[in-house]
Amino acid sequence: MPSGARRRLVVLGSTGSIGEQTLAVAAEFPDRYEVTGLAAGRNLEKLAEQVRRFRPSAVSTADAAGAEALRARLGADAPAFIGSGADGLERVAVHDADFVMAALVGALGLRPTLAAIRAGRDIGLANKEVMVTAGALVQREVAARGGRLLPVDSEHSAIFQCLAGQHPGDVARLILTASGGPFRTWDESRIARATVKQALDHPNWDMGPKITIDSATLMNKGLEVIEARWLFDMPPKRIDVVVHPQSIVHSLVEFTDGSVLAQLGLPDMRGPIAVALEYPRRLPLEVERLDLAAVGRLDFETPDTKRFPCLDLAFAALAADEAAPAVLNAANEIAVAAFLAGEIPFPGIAATNAAVLDAHVSGAGDRRLRDLDDVAEADAWARSHALERLGASGTGG
Amino acid sequence: MPSGARRRLVVLGSTGSIGEQTLAVAAEFPDRYEVTGLAAGRNLEKLAEQVRRFRPSAVSTADAAGAEALRARLGADAPAFIGSGADGLERVAVHDADFVMAALVGALGLRPTLAAIRAGRDIGLANKEVMVTAGALVQREVAARGGRLLPVDSEHSAIFQCLAGQHPGDVARLILTASGGPFRTWDESRIARATVKQALDHPNWDMGPKITIDSATLMNKGLEVIEARWLFDMPPKRIDVVVHPQSIVHSLVEFTDGSVLAQLGLPDMRGPIAVALEYPRRLPLEVERLDLAAVGRLDFETPDTKRFPCLDLAFAALAADEAAPAVLNAANEIAVAAFLAGEIPFPGIAATNAAVLDAHVSGAGDRRLRDLDDVAEADAWARSHALERLGASGTGG
Repeated sequence: MPSGARRRLVVLGSTGSIGEQTLAVAAEFPDRYEVTGLAAGRNLEKLAEQVRRFRPSAVSTADAAGAEALRARLGADAPAFIGSGADGLERVAVHDADFVMAALVGALGLRPTLAAIRAGRDIGLANKEVMVTAGALVQREVAARGGRLLPVDSEHSAIFQCLAGQHPGDVARLILTASGGPFRTWDESRIARATVKQALDHPNWDMGPKITIDSATLMNKGLEVIEARWLFDMPPKRIDVVVHPQSIVHSLVEFTDGSVLAQLGLPDMRGPIAVALEYPRRLPLEVERLDLAAVGRLDFETPDTKRFPCLDLAFAALAADEAAPAVLNAANEIAVAAFLAGEIPFPGIAATNAAVLDAHVSGAGDRRLRDLDDVAEADAWARSHALERLGASGTGG
Repeated sequence: MPSGARRRLVVLGSTGSIGEQTLAVAAEFPDRYEVTGLAAGRNLEKLAEQVRRFRPSAVSTADAAGAEALRARLGADAPAFIGSGADGLERVAVHDADFVMAALVGALGLRPTLAAIRAGRDIGLANKEVMVTAGALVQREVAARGGRLLPVDSEHSAIFQCLAGQHPGDVARLILTASGGPFRTWDESRIARATVKQALDHPNWDMGPKITIDSATLMNKGLEVIEARWLFDMPPKRIDVVVHPQSIVHSLVEFTDGSVLAQLGLPDMRGPIAVALEYPRRLPLEVERLDLAAVGRLDFETPDTKRFPCLDLAFAALAADEAAPAVLNAANEIAVAAFLAGEIPFPGIAATNAAVLDAHVSGAGDRRLRDLDDVAEADAWARSHALERLGASGTGG
């Protein structure tokens, strides 16, 4: 294990799954990490517990009432700074730290993450929407500031690990693996009748409902293709997806000499978190070790974009313009919510996404992302267009 | 592709499979490589062809008669230096070059490879016996000279590629893959009756008879464990073997954080050759690309050391002393020759190896490898002991 001064960590989204696991890693190596800032939403009980345990000097909550309640709850243990809302979040994001774990969910994380990038922090990026909705913008910002974006999801961490020590000019292709979701072996007519309960039954990972549905539609993999395009500055035509039901191979990189490197492991997000925290070194984690002979068999198949059209939509968005991925992402959030609410059938998600993306592409106007307002505008337009469309059709189909 | 001055190559064993493929890579990139030296055995026709094509300034053949015949054959195209035997080989090994491909077969390659190491050359190591018989010695020599040993077989090249950009202190375990050979699914009694023809029928690679038999006994994997121990300075208890019948995953490395990196590809030795030639860059090779979905399925199982005891013998040799691997290797050469000649049954190979290794371990004397004479002595002792034993028992069993 590497030695040296303790790294100062800020965790944005500390009460979520990645936030909690980041703190678990920090707690396992108290000589190695110091937590200086935490930001969370409305789970004040958990946040208070984290503050008592890690003693950060800056904390933020969803709103002013939450901040007051937290202060009251902590009493003498209250940190020097307790903020709230967008301002509090941004203060914590640029608080004294070496590393900021961006583990908020949704568009909320965009501004604080950009602020941390501008402040020159190393960023652990678990907040998908940052690169999905504003990838072109973030990439330009990172290039200008020279900071490091360290991916924290299993696929991009895998690619990041395979690229270590390799020259960017020698990379031929990124290959993202996809579990294929619960409907991988279902035919089209059965998928058309899929229930919410069936769609929420993910085979390998225990995640929130939105991302589990995205996994069932393969939209999740499409969004990851978009992330990969910006994170690794890779032309979309050199990004492929292969279905791998066991989720043991987390992704692969093919090089110009035909050699392929892959990263494997059992599903445990502490792995990617530790890689982001320690790159280029590694932490001696107490995680279950992969035993390939016990796994026995790894399968691979081509994704079926006829049954799962969302994957192609991601490539279409990348081919369209810088704002199109934000449009696709926003449309998908509305469509997934409508499916979870029982308002549209499963194929209605892809149909809604396709229709909103089409409307965007065939519309007029400048589609470059100059700033976060452009991202917000694309997002808002797509949400209202999707809602309108769902209201009009009643089925989204 | 990297640019710069042409790399000057010497190829020892130029008419063998790795030698020819090294020259094929050199021919594909004439602006990148210049061949300055070639050494071969008795295939004068092929050697003459190579000399005409690559115009090396130093060449060596098996013996003086061969050197004369080559000179006569080449006429005005003869290079400045034509040597022969051990002296000629060593002259070519230290001839003007940046990189020496050590692709001789057997103990013959030991002296010239050590000479090239001492001359500070980068070494492409395809000559297994160098590390198997003299690993401890070669490792000390490389450490003293600071040269680079670049493995050129698929398993060690895979591990080498997985280690690129990683800190040695973060490596938990090397995992070599083994095809399992033609008898992988056979039971013990059927293996006992295996014919030479059956043993020569390797499922994935087209290799010479000796190495194909070694693949059937798993002795080949045992010898690779020994190589890996010295090449990567890894304690034997942190080297594992997993059987992988498809030979697509060439080997893997597990790190302290539980993450595993693997190198994959279709069987084509130009890959490892190009990696050795260009490390840390890569060549844009025209090789068939791995299509995982087309492969469909990768299997893994624990090696059965009851049916294939040779693998354990390699670990036993490493646990014994520095000379024991050379003893095991020499015993195995004799035993395989006896099997190929129909003198002993298939299980007689492992039985002979075990008996000779036991006799070595229970014998007296210093077992450190101080120099190549110690290696030669261990080798000679094992050969004569093996022959004696085979002569005495008639079956080796």
